[in-house]
Amino acid sequence: MPSEFEIIRRYFDRPVRSATLGVGDDAALVSPRAGMEVAVSTDLLVEGRHFRAGADPRKLGHKALAVNLSDMAAMGATPRWATLALSLPDADATWIAAFAEGLFALADRFGTELIGGDTVRGPRSACICILGEVPRGQALRRDGACAGDDVWASGDLGGAALALARPDIAEAGQRLDQPEPRIALGERLLGRASAAIDVSDGFAQDLGHILERSGCGAHVQYERLPKFAAFARIGEPELERACVLAGGDDYELVFTAPPRERPALEALARELSVPLARVGEIRAGKSSLTVVDAHGREMTVPRGFDHFSR
Amino acid sequence: MPSEFEIIRRYFDRPVRSATLGVGDDAALVSPRAGMEVAVSTDLLVEGRHFRAGADPRKLGHKALAVNLSDMAAMGATPRWATLALSLPDADATWIAAFAEGLFALADRFGTELIGGDTVRGPRSACICILGEVPRGQALRRDGACAGDDVWASGDLGGAALALARPDIAEAGQRLDQPEPRIALGERLLGRASAAIDVSDGFAQDLGHILERSGCGAHVQYERLPKFAAFARIGEPELERACVLAGGDDYELVFTAPPRERPALEALARELSVPLARVGEIRAGKSSLTVVDAHGREMTVPRGFDHFSR
Repeated sequence: MPSEFEIIRRYFDRPVRSATLGVGDDAALVSPRAGMEVAVSTDLLVEGRHFRAGADPRKLGHKALAVNLSDMAAMGATPRWATLALSLPDADATWIAAFAEGLFALADRFGTELIGGDTVRGPRSACICILGEVPRGQALRRDGACAGDDVWASGDLGGAALALARPDIAEAGQRLDQPEPRIALGERLLGRASAAIDVSDGFAQDLGHILERSGCGAHVQYERLPKFAAFARIGEPELERACVLAGGDDYELVFTAPPRERPALEALARELSVPLARVGEIRAGKSSLTVVDAHGREMTVPRGFDHFSR
Repeated sequence: MPSEFEIIRRYFDRPVRSATLGVGDDAALVSPRAGMEVAVSTDLLVEGRHFRAGADPRKLGHKALAVNLSDMAAMGATPRWATLALSLPDADATWIAAFAEGLFALADRFGTELIGGDTVRGPRSACICILGEVPRGQALRRDGACAGDDVWASGDLGGAALALARPDIAEAGQRLDQPEPRIALGERLLGRASAAIDVSDGFAQDLGHILERSGCGAHVQYERLPKFAAFARIGEPELERACVLAGGDDYELVFTAPPRERPALEALARELSVPLARVGEIRAGKSSLTVVDAHGREMTVPRGFDHFSR
C-alpha cells in the first residue's frame, strides 16, 4: 500500500504558481496582493451525511471544493488557495486519483491552487479550507441589508433538494452532485450588493441569516422565486415549496441591493448569462421573513437544514 | 437539542480583535501586516486514530490546536487566525463546552483568534486550519539545510510515544495529551536556522523530510539526542530507541543551523528556558540519515509514523 507521503506526492503535490510555497512543508506560504483582504472559509463533508457511501469520488472532489468556492462567491472574493484534509478508510489509489481529478478540474477553472493538507486513516470525509482575496472593505457581508433594498436570487432554487426526494430525476441529481459556484457573479456584485449569502441550508434560512445580521425583515413573493425547471412538469406544489424555500445545497447567491442598481444588475445577468430574479424587498422592523403567494396570502415557510436538529 | 447555529454562537462565536470579520458570515476577513507572508497549514484529528473514544474533550481542544500551532512554530511564523471544522455524533453541550475551553485557553495564550468553522453531525473529528504571519522570505522551510550545518533538537523526545507503550507513566500521558507548541522558539530561529520541522511523525522520519527537501544527508549521535526523562529510570534501551527515534507526537522542533550560530542558540535556549541540544551534523551526499551509538556504530532506525502503512 502506498505511504501517506507517496499519496500526497502522487496525487496532490502539484507545482504552485501564485503561492510562494505549496504542498510539502510544515505550512504553505502565500502573499495577498496589495489592497486586498484575505477571505477564509472552511467546509467539511462527511460520508453518510453530505454524500452516500459509494459516491463517485470524482463528483465528490468537485463538490468538496465547490461548496467552499461558493463561500468565496458569497463574499465577492476571488478564490486563490485551498488546503485539503482527507480522512480515508484505506489508501485506494483509484478512488484518490478520481477525487483529485474532480477537485483539480474545478480548481483549475477558477485559478485556485491546492497548497497543503493532511491525509489520515479514518471514516471518509473531506475538509477544505479556502482562502480568497477581496478588495479591502468591499466584501459582501451578511450585515449590510437596508430597508428598501431589493432581494435577488441567482439561477434557480430547489434542484438539489429535489434530487434527494426524487432520485429518478437526472438533471436534479446533476444539480446536487455538481454545483456551480457563482464566482464571477460574486466578484461583480462588489460595490452593488449591500449583503449576500450562498444558499447552502435553504433559501428561507439563508436569507434569514442576512435579516438577523442586518436587523431587518424581508417580504418575498413566492411566484417570483426562480424554481428548478423540473418542478413545472412534476406538478407537486407542496414538494416544490419545500424544495424551493427550504432545500439546501443549491449554492446560488441570494443578495440585497438598492433599487437604483436594477438596471446594472439586469445588464450583469445578461453579460454573465446568469439569471437574476428580483424576488422581494427588505423592510424595516424585526428580523423575520414573510413569503406571500400569488394572492398575497402569507405562506408557511418550512424549516431549512440544521445538522443537529434532524 | 440546540441547533447548529446555537452551538456556534454559544461556544465558538467570540468577538475578534485582529480579524476584520470573524465567525458568522460566509467567510472571515483578515489582513496580514505589511511585509508579512501568510503561512497556512491544516491538521485533522480523528477519533480512534489520533485520540481514543471517550478522550477528555478539554485536552482534545488543546491538542487539536496545539498540533496546528506547532506547524506555525516549525515555519517560524506567528499564529494569528484559525478555523475549526468539527464533526460530532451529537450536540452534547457539556462535551462541546469543554472542547471549546481547551481550545480557547491555548489560543488565548498565543493570541490566536478563531475566525470561522463548520459543525456537522458525523464520526467525531476536528479539523483546524491555521494562518500565521512570517516576514516575507524569512520562513523556516525544509529545503535550506547545507552540508556542515549542525542539527539541533528542542526539549526532549519520545515522551508521547512512551505514553502509548506505557499508559501507567503519567508524565508521558501529559506529554501526549498536552503538547506545548514551540512558538517563541520558532519565531526566534528566523535568520538563524537554515531549515526546520516539527516532530509529528518521529525524529528520524521528520529529519528525513529536511534531508530529502534539502538534498543532503545527516549524521546524528544517539547519545546526544534529548530523551524524555522517564527513560532513564525505566531502563529499556529498545523501547527508548523506538520512542526517541521513531515516536511521533512530540511537537519539538528539529532544525539545522550553521556552526557560527552556536553561541546565539545556546543563549536563546537560556533566555527561553527551552533546552536545545546539538545532536549531529548535515553532510553532503544522498538524503540519508545515519545514527551512531556511543561507540560510533551505526544503529538501525525504526520507521516513523505513516497513516496508511500500519
